[in-house]
Amino acid sequence: MGAERATAMIQGYDPRTGEPAGEPVAETTDEEVDAVASATALPFGIWEGLGPAARAGVLDAVAGALDARTDDLVAVADTETALGSGRLSGEVARTTGQLRHLAGALRDGGYLDAVASGPSEGVPGLRRINRPVGPVAVFAASNFPFAFSVAGGDTASALAAGCPVIVKAHENHPRTAELTARIVAGALAGAGAPGGLFAIVHGVDAGIRLLNHPAIAAAGFTGSRRGGFALARICAGRPVPIPFFGELGSVNPVVVLPGAADRDAEAIAAGYAASLTLGAGQFCTNPGLLFVPDDARLPGAGLLSAIAAAVDATSGGPMLSERIHHGFEAAAGELEAHPAVALLATGKPGDGPWAGTPQAFRTSLDEFAAGLPGLADERFGPAGLVIAYPSVDDLLPVLAGLGGNLVGTVHVDTGSPADVAAARRVTAVLARTTGRVVCNGWPTGVAVTLAQHHGGPWPATTAPAYTSVGAAAIRRWLIPVAYQDFPPDLLPDALRNISP
Amino acid sequence: MGAERATAMIQGYDPRTGEPAGEPVAETTDEEVDAVASATALPFGIWEGLGPAARAGVLDAVAGALDARTDDLVAVADTETALGSGRLSGEVARTTGQLRHLAGALRDGGYLDAVASGPSEGVPGLRRINRPVGPVAVFAASNFPFAFSVAGGDTASALAAGCPVIVKAHENHPRTAELTARIVAGALAGAGAPGGLFAIVHGVDAGIRLLNHPAIAAAGFTGSRRGGFALARICAGRPVPIPFFGELGSVNPVVVLPGAADRDAEAIAAGYAASLTLGAGQFCTNPGLLFVPDDARLPGAGLLSAIAAAVDATSGGPMLSERIHHGFEAAAGELEAHPAVALLATGKPGDGPWAGTPQAFRTSLDEFAAGLPGLADERFGPAGLVIAYPSVDDLLPVLAGLGGNLVGTVHVDTGSPADVAAARRVTAVLARTTGRVVCNGWPTGVAVTLAQHHGGPWPATTAPAYTSVGAAAIRRWLIPVAYQDFPPDLLPDALRNISP
Repeated sequence: MGAERATAMIQGYDPRTGEPAGEPVAETTDEEVDAVASATALPFGIWEGLGPAARAGVLDAVAGALDARTDDLVAVADTETALGSGRLSGEVARTTGQLRHLAGALRDGGYLDAVASGPSEGVPGLRRINRPVGPVAVFAASNFPFAFSVAGGDTASALAAGCPVIVKAHENHPRTAELTARIVAGALAGAGAPGGLFAIVHGVDAGIRLLNHPAIAAAGFTGSRRGGFALARICAGRPVPIPFFGELGSVNPVVVLPGAADRDAEAIAAGYAASLTLGAGQFCTNPGLLFVPDDARLPGAGLLSAIAAAVDATSGGPMLSERIHHGFEAAAGELEAHPAVALLATGKPGDGPWAGTPQAFRTSLDEFAAGLPGLADERFGPAGLVIAYPSVDDLLPVLAGLGGNLVGTVHVDTGSPADVAAARRVTAVLARTTGRVVCNGWPTGVAVTLAQHHGGPWPATTAPAYTSVGAAAIRRWLIPVAYQDFPPDLLPDALRNISP
Repeated sequence: MGAERATAMIQGYDPRTGEPAGEPVAETTDEEVDAVASATALPFGIWEGLGPAARAGVLDAVAGALDARTDDLVAVADTETALGSGRLSGEVARTTGQLRHLAGALRDGGYLDAVASGPSEGVPGLRRINRPVGPVAVFAASNFPFAFSVAGGDTASALAAGCPVIVKAHENHPRTAELTARIVAGALAGAGAPGGLFAIVHGVDAGIRLLNHPAIAAAGFTGSRRGGFALARICAGRPVPIPFFGELGSVNPVVVLPGAADRDAEAIAAGYAASLTLGAGQFCTNPGLLFVPDDARLPGAGLLSAIAAAVDATSGGPMLSERIHHGFEAAAGELEAHPAVALLATGKPGDGPWAGTPQAFRTSLDEFAAGLPGLADERFGPAGLVIAYPSVDDLLPVLAGLGGNLVGTVHVDTGSPADVAAARRVTAVLARTTGRVVCNGWPTGVAVTLAQHHGGPWPATTAPAYTSVGAAAIRRWLIPVAYQDFPPDLLPDALRNISP
């Protein structure tokens, strides 16, 4: 860790052309990483001490500052991601909505879980409350340059909890990250937050050094399984291990039940094609596996042909980076070369050197089961595998044998008793193997609400009890402490006036 | 893992004589471990499906069955632990009280954290609820043959959550474990719980095989740091990693402020000697470090001499095993040989070959700080280190630099403004470095209540956000799942009638 490194530069690229997008940003040096990590101790105490209402006001101020610079943020992000101004301005709004949602959770106070018991005969009086775990390292994602990046959900929830935050920017959008960080830092200072509460670092080495720094108490990550597992190992192997909240890749199985397939083939096919190709398929909630009833009795007339037509009508788009595009091409090529898999449909190629072309493949349930786990690997991009199942009885054990996923979906004709009965069984399996089960919808789109759970069993996440979206995301950065037999004036404010 | 092992036997010993206590118990074979672990799948679904009210009734039945056999349980445990019938019958009552406390949490339903948001314009309806994580492996502790053993808090909370449980018995009390397991299994069957819901295995190899079994979804452990860290690494290194909740050793710093030392010297000395020597000091909440004001101005007249007199008046007792006794002697010997540490007091030796003799040592704050981390190592048994601090200003950074502990304690004269001001500063440090802060009391004794938090920052535990005692212990075995846009009749019962 202590070896000298020459200052390297991080260059963003325009996915529409493959050419450099603006000036490069310098990697953060070891000394700079150590300086910002060490500087969190003082602001931690001050920020925690401000209390939830004051912190809520500061989060609102950050949200307002980002909203006011939406046009500038979208412009720089569009050159680095090619996600388009519609999506990107929506994502800024989602990001600031998220900050305000967490400010609301602070004002509500339920996140403190303040609780009292005793005293009674022979039993001491106990008062328990949640407090911030300490300085948090946040690893930004490539595919959400705002909502899961510098000012995204991890940062917002950690700041809300009372923790200082150091963000490791994603290499694909360094200038977007820098601009966001400048706006956030300015808004924090203007709203009275302590200096050193928030910082940004650039570069993979800087991120690893940050994760190993003794000042860091927990880390949040959104990204690939490979990256997430590597960082999880670092956290577990530190002299003082720290919790690591990794939200990783997922293939999000969708089950179409027979009644729904009969009744809603066109709508399901259209919804699937839209969800599969949204954002060039670059979502961890992408519907990578679609299970449909085996429709051999009606060749060409059923759901499969509707899906083929819908996917044929889609268009691809520039992917976020050369590396992501290369990975997608390799994964889709592997699928195409698989002896048990056939190409079902191909959309129009998108523009630019890194365009991902939508593709749907098909196989049978038996072949799919024989090809596990490889056939259930995530293919980050607009490629889906459609699996024809002969019966729900056959489907259930295969579904149960998939690894953990973020989302599971069931399409059911609620007017069909057979479909409803089958939906119960499918839902029971999905509720054990995914973090969120969707009925008659699609997995893409993650609402920022109180009841959201964006998580899931390993390997969808490294910490299945937690969510990275919604008010409950704050829980990742909290630990309880109990006070036994304390006089009220020595208790924290929030514990003084509660009753057993 | 798959290597053949000859069936070995586990022999309990009577700590009062060092002689075998009853017949040995056979180690569980690999095949037997695999069989009980694999057999949890079916009862898991049934037990979860029974719902909280029915599970509460079953836990009450288990509690009743154990209560009815208290005398038999105490008799066998006394021969294997020498803890005495008073302590042991109290511990059976604590254990059954714990089962009933968790049954109460099930009836209350708050543990489900059922919550709803939406639907509204453009936002889906979400309903979130906690569900059981899956079959749990419980590693029993040596020092609580009931309350942290076969039917202890981990087992009670995991069963309450809806999880099957397989207990790895502790080698020091195999027959106590066997009898408890028979009573629990009988009560479960009699109350209608599914077969295979609960099992016991014996032997270190069996425990490790259990932890590696793919059916196991989480594990609880109470014991040494060395053992806990080893098992934590196994859980993190599995093909599918699982959460590991280790509650490990601790030295539980106690700070006596100047006003309290002046006013309450005799009472504090008596309380310290009692807490230090309770159960021959074999508690993870033992007050291993006592910080007292430097009293050089009044040689022989202050708190230190009161402590010396109080500890001199104590008696030792048989420790739980030859290995624990050996470890204690080595740790106390190391302290005695330390150049900066002086012997302050010695109690009377206890009876039997493995008796631990109470000992208090003293050093200065400077010498203590120079001897870290070694001088803050746990010495499992009745040996305490008393550290004289010149001022609270000097004390605070040393206190802040200790690793995580389960409990921190402050003794304060609440009538003294100087003490109260100092108590605020000491409490702020302890609230960051321990799981429970006690005012004017002692760390031993952990109430089983709603607001309890028996946990603490690493290395006191491997999962600082969780408690192993009290109703909140159930949270270790729960993970959330969210349902999006489900019709009410496809939702779990507990989610049907809640409103946003």
